[in-house]
Amino acid sequence: MTRTVAVIVGSLRKASFNRRMAHALAALAPANLKLGIVEIGGLPLYDEDLEADTPSAWSAFRDAVRPADAVLFVTPEYNRSVPGALKNAIDVGSRPYGQSVWSRKPAAIVSVSPGAIGGFGANHHLRQSLVFLDMPILQQPEAYIGGAATLFDDAGGIANEGTRKFLTGFMARFDDLIETALAGR
Amino acid sequence: MTRTVAVIVGSLRKASFNRRMAHALAALAPANLKLGIVEIGGLPLYDEDLEADTPSAWSAFRDAVRPADAVLFVTPEYNRSVPGALKNAIDVGSRPYGQSVWSRKPAAIVSVSPGAIGGFGANHHLRQSLVFLDMPILQQPEAYIGGAATLFDDAGGIANEGTRKFLTGFMARFDDLIETALAGR
Amino acid sequence: MTRTVAVIVGSLRKASFNRRMAHALAALAPANLKLGIVEIGGLPLYDEDLEADTPSAWSAFRDAVRPADAVLFVTPEYNRSVPGALKNAIDVGSRPYGQSVWSRKPAAIVSVSPGAIGGFGANHHLRQSLVFLDMPILQQPEAYIGGAATLFDDAGGIANEGTRKFLTGFMARFDDLIETALAGR
Amino acid sequence: MTRTVAVIVGSLRKASFNRRMAHALAALAPANLKLGIVEIGGLPLYDEDLEADTPSAWSAFRDAVRPADAVLFVTPEYNRSVPGALKNAIDVGSRPYGQSVWSRKPAAIVSVSPGAIGGFGANHHLRQSLVFLDMPILQQPEAYIGGAATLFDDAGGIANEGTRKFLTGFMARFDDLIETALAGR
Repeated sequence: MTRTVAVIVGSLRKASFNRRMAHALAALAPANLKLGIVEIGGLPLYDEDLEADTPSAWSAFRDAVRPADAVLFVTPEYNRSVPGALKNAIDVGSRPYGQSVWSRKPAAIVSVSPGAIGGFGANHHLRQSLVFLDMPILQQPEAYIGGAATLFDDAGGIANEGTRKFLTGFMARFDDLIETALAGR
Repeated sequence: MTRTVAVIVGSLRKASFNRRMAHALAALAPANLKLGIVEIGGLPLYDEDLEADTPSAWSAFRDAVRPADAVLFVTPEYNRSVPGALKNAIDVGSRPYGQSVWSRKPAAIVSVSPGAIGGFGANHHLRQSLVFLDMPILQQPEAYIGGAATLFDDAGGIANEGTRKFLTGFMARFDDLIETALAGR
Repeated sequence: MTRTVAVIVGSLRKASFNRRMAHALAALAPANLKLGIVEIGGLPLYDEDLEADTPSAWSAFRDAVRPADAVLFVTPEYNRSVPGALKNAIDVGSRPYGQSVWSRKPAAIVSVSPGAIGGFGANHHLRQSLVFLDMPILQQPEAYIGGAATLFDDAGGIANEGTRKFLTGFMARFDDLIETALAGR
Repeated sequence: MTRTVAVIVGSLRKASFNRRMAHALAALAPANLKLGIVEIGGLPLYDEDLEADTPSAWSAFRDAVRPADAVLFVTPEYNRSVPGALKNAIDVGSRPYGQSVWSRKPAAIVSVSPGAIGGFGANHHLRQSLVFLDMPILQQPEAYIGGAATLFDDAGGIANEGTRKFLTGFMARFDDLIETALAGR
């Protein structure tokens, strides 16, 4: 069954490894998963006072995430945690109180970094937020992807066959989680 | 459908608030959930060298957890993290490599402390381990139970009606997660 | 000796409990500590591409933090972590690579929330970032301040005498850390 | 000035990479630092009830750590967190209430793992405990040491020159922290 997946990319720069990873994952995903990036770069910093006249960028973001069946986070690590821009998007989507767009959507996280550690710190900080947001989360496999600079081939695919298989399996397991979680609602 | 739940209590002292909480939760759980405490106090510290002649206490523990449908952790916080005794039980159950008894069992966590914070630190550190152990985890409601000294009535039940309702709801949601997760396997 | 402390407030709303806490802490601090809030609400989301023509708000923020002797973070918890706006300020201050304004400045964290848990999750996620930023951090006392709605008296001071004494002691210990850490550089 | 450093090794197996790392670090440390391993493998699991007749292994451990000037933790990661045996040692040393042997001792952490991530999860969970234990902690450099299987040369030294220089620098920075922290007491 076709499922829509809102993809949130944690880096804003144009040539972002994580943006490229998001595109590569869309190509590796089971055919029934329709991945689409929801942009976060234009969201004003969350400030509850602004809800009196909700910024249109907030409303558009919420409206884009709300209908999705699931959410895929693809993120770098900044200063051993989630980038501010990504955390801001989470905060914006979680409010106003009682109207969170994240609630009960199954989720998965891929963290990508240039170094060896693969964004472990960002990955797990994000998981702590997803507890509060009540999002069923893919536990295994974990996806800490290091060595970002040599990840991609010229066509934007995953250059290394082992990594490609791993990520293909990751998306298949995410597909399973989505079906399981949605069946349980 | 009847489901067996292995209950792991993080404190070893006899009058432990968490042990009492485990008993109280058994009474509040849906009738189809059969909760039983699996003791961890007699487990030798995990040391891979000992697997050459596996301690009988390790084998007994693994044999007790393996057949359970789900796992409920009820734990205090020691030094802002999981008690060593509980972490040791997790380590014992996770080995030998490829034979983890935890794998894919749905899980929930209740943390109980005398102070206000309700074991938040232990609760989330434990969640990080459950990612690796591939255990689908109850996200909401979170159960950080403070004020342990006044929690129980003389019969060992939950004294406060609001808390009792909250924990009854918690066990109902855990029951839902168990069915959802097992259906998805 | 007079020491300047850059205060970063994690909430942007005008009537923020954390902003009020920042003012209350300035009044309770040892006389030699000069606390001044550095505003973060006008910082564009961090995007490395923008460094080609660095936004003036970023430069102004960096210039305001750089000369400070120490940093005090006063923050709520959003979705069990640091607010996006605060994390963004940390990210902005940490770049460009090699020019972080945070490096080696002694730091302390006060987290404030309406509920009982007092921002424990935000407090410790922030600590993980401060490891990377190489900021000596006040370990004890920890300041998880719950019950924000009744914290302040009409003059903006701390209403409860026990809390006032606690926070006075907290600022004294922070003062000690600042002297110790600066002496060691 | 000569300083004694209690070294706590998180793995109990005889051929432990972390034990070998502890020995290698002793050889790379500045001459004034005297490192000595304090064993944790014989500590009964912490149980407050046992304090009525304190186990001699607990007393011996506490007596061994108490006089040290500083503490170095060298640990693997088990299930994305601190090994149970190490957490148990921390719990034992932290009690009885008010008599923690850890309090105010400067500390550093080296985490070692076979894989690429280098024990990041254990490293940071341990840091959260050290906040509560009031131990000034080395922030930079962080030491996540992966690829444990090829770390050592035949003499037990660090085989790779870059890693050896890194760890030498790490111990020098730890030495600085020890002097700074002790001067500030």
